[in-house]
Amino acid sequence: MESINATIITIGDELLIGQVIDTNSAFIAQSLNAIGVAVKSRIAVGDDAKDIKAALDEAAEKSQIIIITGGLGPTADDITKPLLNHYFGGKMVIHEPSLAHITYIFETIHKRPMIDRNRKQAEVPDVCEVLFNEKGTAPGMLFKKNGVFFFSLPGVPHEMKWLTTTHVIPIIQKAFQPNFIGHRTLLTAGIGESFLAELIFAFENSLPPNIKLAYLPNFGMVRLRLTSSNKDDAILNKELDSYFESLKLAVNEYLVTDADEPMEVVVGNLLKSKQQTVATAESCTGGYIGHLLSKHAGSSQFYTGGIISYDNRIKTEFLDVSSTILQTVGAVSKEAVEQMALAVRAKMNTDYAVSVSGIMGPGGQTNEKPLGMVWIGVANKEKVVSKVFYLRFDRARNIEVTASQAINLLRLLIINKI
Amino acid sequence: MESINATIITIGDELLIGQVIDTNSAFIAQSLNAIGVAVKSRIAVGDDAKDIKAALDEAAEKSQIIIITGGLGPTADDITKPLLNHYFGGKMVIHEPSLAHITYIFETIHKRPMIDRNRKQAEVPDVCEVLFNEKGTAPGMLFKKNGVFFFSLPGVPHEMKWLTTTHVIPIIQKAFQPNFIGHRTLLTAGIGESFLAELIFAFENSLPPNIKLAYLPNFGMVRLRLTSSNKDDAILNKELDSYFESLKLAVNEYLVTDADEPMEVVVGNLLKSKQQTVATAESCTGGYIGHLLSKHAGSSQFYTGGIISYDNRIKTEFLDVSSTILQTVGAVSKEAVEQMALAVRAKMNTDYAVSVSGIMGPGGQTNEKPLGMVWIGVANKEKVVSKVFYLRFDRARNIEVTASQAINLLRLLIINKI
Repeated sequence: MESINATIITIGDELLIGQVIDTNSAFIAQSLNAIGVAVKSRIAVGDDAKDIKAALDEAAEKSQIIIITGGLGPTADDITKPLLNHYFGGKMVIHEPSLAHITYIFETIHKRPMIDRNRKQAEVPDVCEVLFNEKGTAPGMLFKKNGVFFFSLPGVPHEMKWLTTTHVIPIIQKAFQPNFIGHRTLLTAGIGESFLAELIFAFENSLPPNIKLAYLPNFGMVRLRLTSSNKDDAILNKELDSYFESLKLAVNEYLVTDADEPMEVVVGNLLKSKQQTVATAESCTGGYIGHLLSKHAGSSQFYTGGIISYDNRIKTEFLDVSSTILQTVGAVSKEAVEQMALAVRAKMNTDYAVSVSGIMGPGGQTNEKPLGMVWIGVANKEKVVSKVFYLRFDRARNIEVTASQAINLLRLLIINKI
Repeated sequence: MESINATIITIGDELLIGQVIDTNSAFIAQSLNAIGVAVKSRIAVGDDAKDIKAALDEAAEKSQIIIITGGLGPTADDITKPLLNHYFGGKMVIHEPSLAHITYIFETIHKRPMIDRNRKQAEVPDVCEVLFNEKGTAPGMLFKKNGVFFFSLPGVPHEMKWLTTTHVIPIIQKAFQPNFIGHRTLLTAGIGESFLAELIFAFENSLPPNIKLAYLPNFGMVRLRLTSSNKDDAILNKELDSYFESLKLAVNEYLVTDADEPMEVVVGNLLKSKQQTVATAESCTGGYIGHLLSKHAGSSQFYTGGIISYDNRIKTEFLDVSSTILQTVGAVSKEAVEQMALAVRAKMNTDYAVSVSGIMGPGGQTNEKPLGMVWIGVANKEKVVSKVFYLRFDRARNIEVTASQAINLLRLLIINKI
């Protein structure tokens, strides 16, 4: 078993001009990693035949597996398929199962007449192996040349994901039998990256060269990841587990979770295990905390609902924040968020509540209340606790950081650490 | 003025194993594009010296400008700085202004003692030009070799953004005086990609070779983009404007906006111009519609607030959805979303309201109500309108699509199209 590596090529001008953020590559990289294939590089190229060919040549020199996404749609800027046909010296033929599927999608699902442009999506080079796309109109394709596997997948994320999981991964496992790669990831909160590095200095020095440690910092929360690979799955896991235990001990005071999961999943699992519930009262985050708590499957077990009190009138009418509070200390205050948390918990009859009010920018600051100032409140039946933060980011990032700090404060209340 | 192009190199194992989604490249590409620099390719490499050097060599062959992000932190996995020092044959020296700034951040802002690891962040190769990083502890760097400019920036998004805007872009403009690149983007709704392509077939054939047309589809909403470049800014804009006018005419029936802006900004601008307001009542999206409406600056002018009625009890207690409705037609029904929209509009006293209730999956479906079924309601003072959708994606994508369709339905009500 030699070391198997892959290159991901994403095609589309929108990726090069920054109009679209590439989330496909992350999914593909995760899927390949899970079966022991290291992604050596990721290349994004525009809708340009010369550049795409150059990327294919380059990738084939360093990787045995090449995954190409994008450019398979029905319009003139979608040039991947004719280009691959030419590159591998094939000719275009109709793939009957795909044609039947496309016809079904148009006639039965969309209930629209099919046009020639749609029919052409069923054409494939005769030199490829077709990866049947149950989720859409563009077939996936596999080309083989000098032992290198070239997979071409549509850029539409849910189609790409389905084809990767159903076709690409099993084909690679069968053909290459790659080394196993293992990761162990934990999340810490309440300690900065450089102080964490000091704390685990001895541990880091004790690591053998085949185990890599990575720091992934995110405003007061740092994820640590150990990575190794081995042809023997059992040896790999035993070694990683042993070092991971030492790492967990070393960071114990700051440990949030020893799984690779976001903060809101940690809190959701805590609540589910206690069969408890939470409600939200959001001003400056405008629903983002509710979104985080409800975006994962199973959240209806613990997330009851919330009030988005964006306008101060809603704080008064729905959450009983008095006009005295609004006129004296204002909406961004300890008093306001504590009242918001108490009110939403009482009115929605939940075990916990979390509330936020702050100045996300740009603009809105005063002499007393700078841009990025945010109050967070959490409550249970015994008490209400609040904390102020001063953030220094742009609006989008301030919203994200506020939400993750709020969920962390809720976590600390649930585990009796505040 | 020759054609100037750039390569973006992102460094970090987390990008190759798919743990982190790369949003930096999109920002850098947009910024470069705006000043006429085309991004030729984007390469992601791991924390591996050999791979990084190979990427630098490769990039220098095809680009005059290379932007490197990541690997500048204080921990052992951050290898970019010593590697660049070695690559360009320099020696490390303390950069005094950066040291003063780091000291200030630790002593005055964090109020924590500085450790050696932090002090080392002020070290830079003596062969680089330092790009002072006002937003963080890792200085940006510029190396020049054979006419190629290598910029090294931290991977922390808000630091990278600030350095790009403040240092990188002005330096490139001054040194390279690149060709101007122009884009014109519009958004359509209510027509699929292939039907749109038929509709604008004549227009697409009329385009001269120097103007490119791209389709960016997103579930019933397609963005169309025209791109061109020219050394003369005035000629470029005149030509693009003229073709863009023809394109707008051709898609007029389906046109949402002729700016490169998301649906929620279109709706926000409509409401601001009419000085009207909206409230939200969300079940299955759990706050995501509120988040979209409030994530852009200035949203407090039109977004009043909302109820997240995740649990059915909240639909009854806060939005007066009767137990009869819940027991007969259920929470995912025309009756439920219409009542939710009417109630939240009345209670929050807004001009408009939007409501959603659906089955986002995985699980939760019944014989009558399949996975992905979602009802959307919108109301103003004259009427309430609702529509059912059947989505076929995963949970995350179902939430996104529901939110954008809900905001589109709100738009259609505001402009009297439903």
